[in-house]
Amino acid sequence: MIKRDLGGDHHDAIFRPSPADAGDCHQGGREPWLLVALPEIPSGKIYGESAKSDAEAAFAALQGEAFALPDHPENARIGAEISPWGPALAISYPAAPVDDLVAASLAASSAWAEAAIETRVGICLEILARLNRQSFLMAHATMHTTGQAFAMAFQAGGPHAQDRALEAVALAYAEMTRFAPRADWIKPQGKAAPLEIEKHWTILPRGISLAIGCNTFPTWNSYSGIFASLATGNTVIVKPHPAAILPLALTVRVAREVLAEAGLPADVILLAADRADAPLAKDLVTRPEVALIDYTGSNAFGDWVRANAGRAAVFTEEAGINTVTLAATEDFNAVCANLAFSLALYSGQMCTAPQNIYIPAEGIETDQGHKSFDEVAAGIRAAIEALLADPAQASGICGTIANPATLQRVAEARGLGKIIRDSAPLASGRSATPLLLAVNEDDRATYEQERFGPIAFLIRMRDADTAITKAADLARSKGAITAALYDTDEARISRAIRAFAGAGVNLSINLTGNIFVNQSAAFSDFHVTGANPAGNASLTDTAFVANRFHRVMWRRPISDRTAASGAN
Amino acid sequence: MIKRDLGGDHHDAIFRPSPADAGDCHQGGREPWLLVALPEIPSGKIYGESAKSDAEAAFAALQGEAFALPDHPENARIGAEISPWGPALAISYPAAPVDDLVAASLAASSAWAEAAIETRVGICLEILARLNRQSFLMAHATMHTTGQAFAMAFQAGGPHAQDRALEAVALAYAEMTRFAPRADWIKPQGKAAPLEIEKHWTILPRGISLAIGCNTFPTWNSYSGIFASLATGNTVIVKPHPAAILPLALTVRVAREVLAEAGLPADVILLAADRADAPLAKDLVTRPEVALIDYTGSNAFGDWVRANAGRAAVFTEEAGINTVTLAATEDFNAVCANLAFSLALYSGQMCTAPQNIYIPAEGIETDQGHKSFDEVAAGIRAAIEALLADPAQASGICGTIANPATLQRVAEARGLGKIIRDSAPLASGRSATPLLLAVNEDDRATYEQERFGPIAFLIRMRDADTAITKAADLARSKGAITAALYDTDEARISRAIRAFAGAGVNLSINLTGNIFVNQSAAFSDFHVTGANPAGNASLTDTAFVANRFHRVMWRRPISDRTAASGAN
Repeated sequence: MIKRDLGGDHHDAIFRPSPADAGDCHQGGREPWLLVALPEIPSGKIYGESAKSDAEAAFAALQGEAFALPDHPENARIGAEISPWGPALAISYPAAPVDDLVAASLAASSAWAEAAIETRVGICLEILARLNRQSFLMAHATMHTTGQAFAMAFQAGGPHAQDRALEAVALAYAEMTRFAPRADWIKPQGKAAPLEIEKHWTILPRGISLAIGCNTFPTWNSYSGIFASLATGNTVIVKPHPAAILPLALTVRVAREVLAEAGLPADVILLAADRADAPLAKDLVTRPEVALIDYTGSNAFGDWVRANAGRAAVFTEEAGINTVTLAATEDFNAVCANLAFSLALYSGQMCTAPQNIYIPAEGIETDQGHKSFDEVAAGIRAAIEALLADPAQASGICGTIANPATLQRVAEARGLGKIIRDSAPLASGRSATPLLLAVNEDDRATYEQERFGPIAFLIRMRDADTAITKAADLARSKGAITAALYDTDEARISRAIRAFAGAGVNLSINLTGNIFVNQSAAFSDFHVTGANPAGNASLTDTAFVANRFHRVMWRRPISDRTAASGAN
Repeated sequence: MIKRDLGGDHHDAIFRPSPADAGDCHQGGREPWLLVALPEIPSGKIYGESAKSDAEAAFAALQGEAFALPDHPENARIGAEISPWGPALAISYPAAPVDDLVAASLAASSAWAEAAIETRVGICLEILARLNRQSFLMAHATMHTTGQAFAMAFQAGGPHAQDRALEAVALAYAEMTRFAPRADWIKPQGKAAPLEIEKHWTILPRGISLAIGCNTFPTWNSYSGIFASLATGNTVIVKPHPAAILPLALTVRVAREVLAEAGLPADVILLAADRADAPLAKDLVTRPEVALIDYTGSNAFGDWVRANAGRAAVFTEEAGINTVTLAATEDFNAVCANLAFSLALYSGQMCTAPQNIYIPAEGIETDQGHKSFDEVAAGIRAAIEALLADPAQASGICGTIANPATLQRVAEARGLGKIIRDSAPLASGRSATPLLLAVNEDDRATYEQERFGPIAFLIRMRDADTAITKAADLARSKGAITAALYDTDEARISRAIRAFAGAGVNLSINLTGNIFVNQSAAFSDFHVTGANPAGNASLTDTAFVANRFHRVMWRRPISDRTAASGAN
């Protein structure tokens, strides 16, 4: 049994045996936010005894078939997903020209905008409840599009993504109801009757919200934006990555069912399936009707989106280079084991996975005495070997490689430094274990760029303070979503806290045991700070929801309306 | 005595005799916001018996001199302000290259970012308190750069602008302290010791904030952005309109004094004075260090800013066309008087001033019986004549024309329709009273564009419902900050509420007496919705402040830190 959670960066409770035994979060005061709602354990006791077999049957039934999205705009069928675990899915999805999608979205917009806040929020919650019940099916869909192992696919594709969505809905609700919907303004006028004006505010959505999904975490990375936009009254067009359509197609189907049952237009949410050789993203981004864009992907396309989005508000998660600085430790084995897991998990294809491990050239002090650079490298290597010794466990941790280009990148990276540990395929799927390379501080061109996938550099640095400074500088210039530090010197830890905060990157200090730098939690982690090039938005802070709608007022003398009522 | 407030769109209390007698605002629930804090009456009883004469002396002393900004970057002196009331101010301001300004701003950034939230907010409040005490001087500075009459210059340039700033500071404080600064995350681990992680969040400002001011309301339109950015820890570069530098130079001076007294770098706020023939705005907008931009001005330059701002967040107030729809009234004289004042106030140079007055071709029902289109037009004309009959009162309402191009626009507009009332200069300053033109519904090219200044169209519409629809459509396509409706048909009023809300424009219904469509209030009006082309941001909602900073976390096992403390 793997004594670790495999959900990656997407949860706030590890191996929670039952909801009653769930982790608790003690807030330091002020607003207590909704905590874990959706169980992350793929257990029949929670999801129903037949959930697992039902989902297997449902997933098998989807393959080779036309995916049904009743009443969805459609003038063609597309779909060419191939599981990184092997089989082609051979599922076809409805496709429609951008003009048709925009027209359908606009046609649905008034009814959705005019629905009560509570109606929209209730529908979002119902969608999430139904998605939660489909978590086993979503696990298969996620596994066979992202290449994640089943446990991660269940958690990250299912309950953790749903938690993110719930977080967005809760914050959107709080924000929409933050100010009074009516205020009376009363002004004395000396001897004359006072001026009395009633003011009323309506929540006005921005327009069409476009969600551009990614290959590796199609639901987790998209749900926050989709649900924040839905709750605030925007219609949504979901454009999945062409290699990972199914998880979002299932999501859109559930949402459309709930909308239709509530008597609202199903086209409030639409699927913009496209092909890698005929992408729709640019056409959608530049449409003036698109007023919100949630984008996960490369910095280069992120820059293009920003420059071409016109008046649309743009929320991005882009690429970065995450670092670990090893300065000292009182538990060397635990550090190596913790890092080994972080490096191996989903073969480094997480936005939170570390790439650069900075180690002082003279080595570090540990509970096992001084360890040289080479001894530290050997320790990490050995921990990875131990972690991946059992083939089934190795596959369960590493999963597969989502994109063949990543394998090519691993192959090319072998020449970039001294190989400490070579990457190798596992028995199952298109897979690759971590490649560890030792390089020198001067090799900046090698390690100061993102090399997405199971590629990590052990970097021989002048000293620990230099490592902290360089790691923070890199986060500032190239972006980073996570940083980690292992140290025992409290003064240096304080300097590091200041340095990484200044670079806008979340820092994890001395993590060992069952908590990993690649893990972040809904409800308290403000995943991605928005403060460096790795993304301009946080999941999910106030800015993520507050800019998805506006307030519009009407005002009128109270006496005037009273008179009118009296006259009626 | 002028029985009206002259502060225009910038206040929420009219002729408040004393703070104790101030208007009250009854919120319908939830967060009660800070209400009026700064008295708007230019009275010696409030501001000190010598405040008026002191300010006159201080203003006289500024003229013809080099404006002192101690320790401000400076390699040249510029300044060519000419009062629309007559005299050239002949004040020179320190000027510096953009490189120097950005470098100075960056050098000041760490100290400001690391100051406690309460320190920054306290400094903002002290700046505002001192600005408030200088309100008489600010009135002169505003009057002689914008051309406003004294009473409006006092209110809009002084306490109303300060109210806006206070609103932004209060909301920024609420947002920065909305979430807990620390949370402990505790996760049971079966028989093993629970995982216990402490999480801490720091407020991280975005960077340099650029405020691009306008000619007509240099402080009122800029203070919200300047103070929201300051409170959230950003350094600010203030780029005034070259014709209205003095009010913002005074502001920057006061702010730098308070900062220096608090032991913080004065360069937290800088003045980027420029010349009309050598503007700095584009150079500043495109600097990567500029992370926030508050802009007031034309849509064309607003589009340029959006396309060239890179990763900077952009908040704009741009141009629009405000409408009034006359459908019916039970107090014809009061409607005409109310509209007359709205049209004459500061000669239509307010972002909230109406331009298009839609009137059914068949006329309207009133308390005086049916009034034909021509009778309605005559009524409005007569009300303007009555309002402006006394030369001193006329000058006190109309003020002068800020920009000579506006006079040219008035001259050219005379040929655009049938002249109902001609524009004419007043005795004082470069002035122009309202030009009223009658046009037909078909003359869309004439009236469906902004004609900034004292130009209004009386438009002969098919019927009232058509007028409402067209007015809302125009707000949606060209932008609008205000809309007004006079009607007695409750069903049509309901349709209008829906139509204008859908167009994202605030609607005033049946305003008569001492409340005007061009007036908006700090603390409850969310001035500019952000929901149509007249601006992408509201003063001041959550979105206006929440995106000016990020949250950055560090987390660490509690046991780890406890152990470290024990070891110390």
